[in-house]
Parts: sequence; structure tokens; C-alpha cells
Amino acid sequence: MPDLLSQKFSALADPTRRAMLARLAEGEACVSDLAAPFLTEMSLPAVTKHVKVLEKAGLVEKSRDGQRRPCSLKPEALQDVNQWLEQYRQLWEESLDRLDEYLKSVTAAQAEQEKSNKNAPRTKSDGRKSK
Amino acid sequence: MPDLLSQKFSALADPTRRAMLARLAEGEACVSDLAAPFLTEMSLPAVTKHVKVLEKAGLVEKSRDGQRRPCSLKPEALQDVNQWLEQYRQLWEESLDRLDEYLKSVTAAQAEQEKSNKNAPRTKSDGRKSK
Repeated sequence: MPDLLSQKFSALADPTRRAMLARLAEGEACVSDLAAPFLTEMSLPAVTKHVKVLEKAGLVEKSRDGQRRPCSLKPEALQDVNQWLEQYRQLWEESLDRLDEYLKSVTAAQAEQEKSNKNAPRTKSDGRKSK
Repeated sequence: MPDLLSQKFSALADPTRRAMLARLAEGEACVSDLAAPFLTEMSLPAVTKHVKVLEKAGLVEKSRDGQRRPCSLKPEALQDVNQWLEQYRQLWEESLDRLDEYLKSVTAAQAEQEKSNKNAPRTKSDGRKSK
């Protein structure tokens, strides 16, 4: 039995399940409503299985409302996924800053090159003159 | 073939692979170094397979340094995982705020109860007096 954090990551590793969470972020829905957009590409049991994976990971909860059993999102279950990710935030921000610096230096060098090409068209370089 | 975001979530859904990323966050390492802490519980091919899953998801990169092929972390690959999560941040923060409010109200009610018990020990309630 995998740990809960692994179960959450695993539950999120599927576009159908992520689409279901996006739907539930707008408000609760019963399984048949959740299933509707997917029934052209998969069976109702397949959809139900996806909902069960989300439930088991604690991301979705089924309540009881008379005959209905609406599903709702448990967004607080994403907090430990966020906490795990947080440890790497500084690293990826540094990495993106380095990429940004690099792209800026490349752009600046190109602009400098274009400027010098414009100012001195068709002249030979000093290097060649001194030969 | 799953989409890249699904591949990333899937790669993160394993404690061994998350431990490898934590090791690589400290600096690059070759596969045998990465494998060392896990060889009591799994074979080298099993460890190599985990590294390949991380590579395929873009979270780890193998470079070439003479005979060595050190692995390094690509933290910027976590950015789209973070972007996906970000959509739900407001929802889970609201949810945690509500929980916090609820706990505060319970604690306050308990404190109030204890205070009134202390101030009026062993006396009957007004309700009983009026009977």
C-alpha cells in the first residue's frame, strides 16, 4: 500500500482525473454528471474507477444527500503536495533566473552585433588591415 | 503515451524517486551513488529503472563527463506541476481558513464553559431553581 503522498501524485497523473477535479472546483457533482463529458471515450465503470482513485487519495469526498451521493473536492488534500513542491521552489526559480540572464545576454550581444554591422557596412576589419 | 504533466506526476508518485530528487537537489551524482542507499531493498536494475522514469519525465538529466555520466536535477521541470497546483491554492487556503475558524470557535466555547464551571461550582442552574 503506497503512502498517501504517493497516492495523491498517482491520482493526479491522469488527465481525466485532473479534469474531474477541475469540474469539482466549480462545485459538487454526482458521478453521472462527472462522467458525462467522458462517456464518448470510456465506459461508466471506467469513470467510476477514476472517481474511486480520487476518493482513495483523499482528493474527493462522497457525501449522502437523500438518494443522491454528490462528490465534492477536498482542496486541502493538495496542501502536502504543495509542501513537497515548496522545497524545490528556490531551485527552479534560480534555474529560471539563470536562463533569463542567459537569454538577455544573447539578445544584447545580437543587438550589439547588428548595431556594429549597421555603423560599418562593407569595411574590412582592423585585423585584416594590419595583415 | 501519457502527456508530460501526467508523466511528471507519475514519476513523483514513488518515495524512492522522490528521495533521489532530494539527493540530487544537493548536487549531481552518478547512478551508483544515487543507488547506494537503496541497494539493501532493491536491485541495481530496479534503481536504474527509477532513474529512467525521472529522466523520461524531464526531472533528471544525464550529462557526459569523460567516462562518468552524472545525473543532475532539472528543477525547472517542476514549474508546470506548480502551475497546475496554483489553480487550487485559493480553494485549499479558504478551506483551511474555515477549519481554523471552526477550531477557534470550539476552543473559545470550551474556555467559556470551563470559566463558568469554575465561577459557579456545585450550584444548581437557574433552570433547576425555577422548578
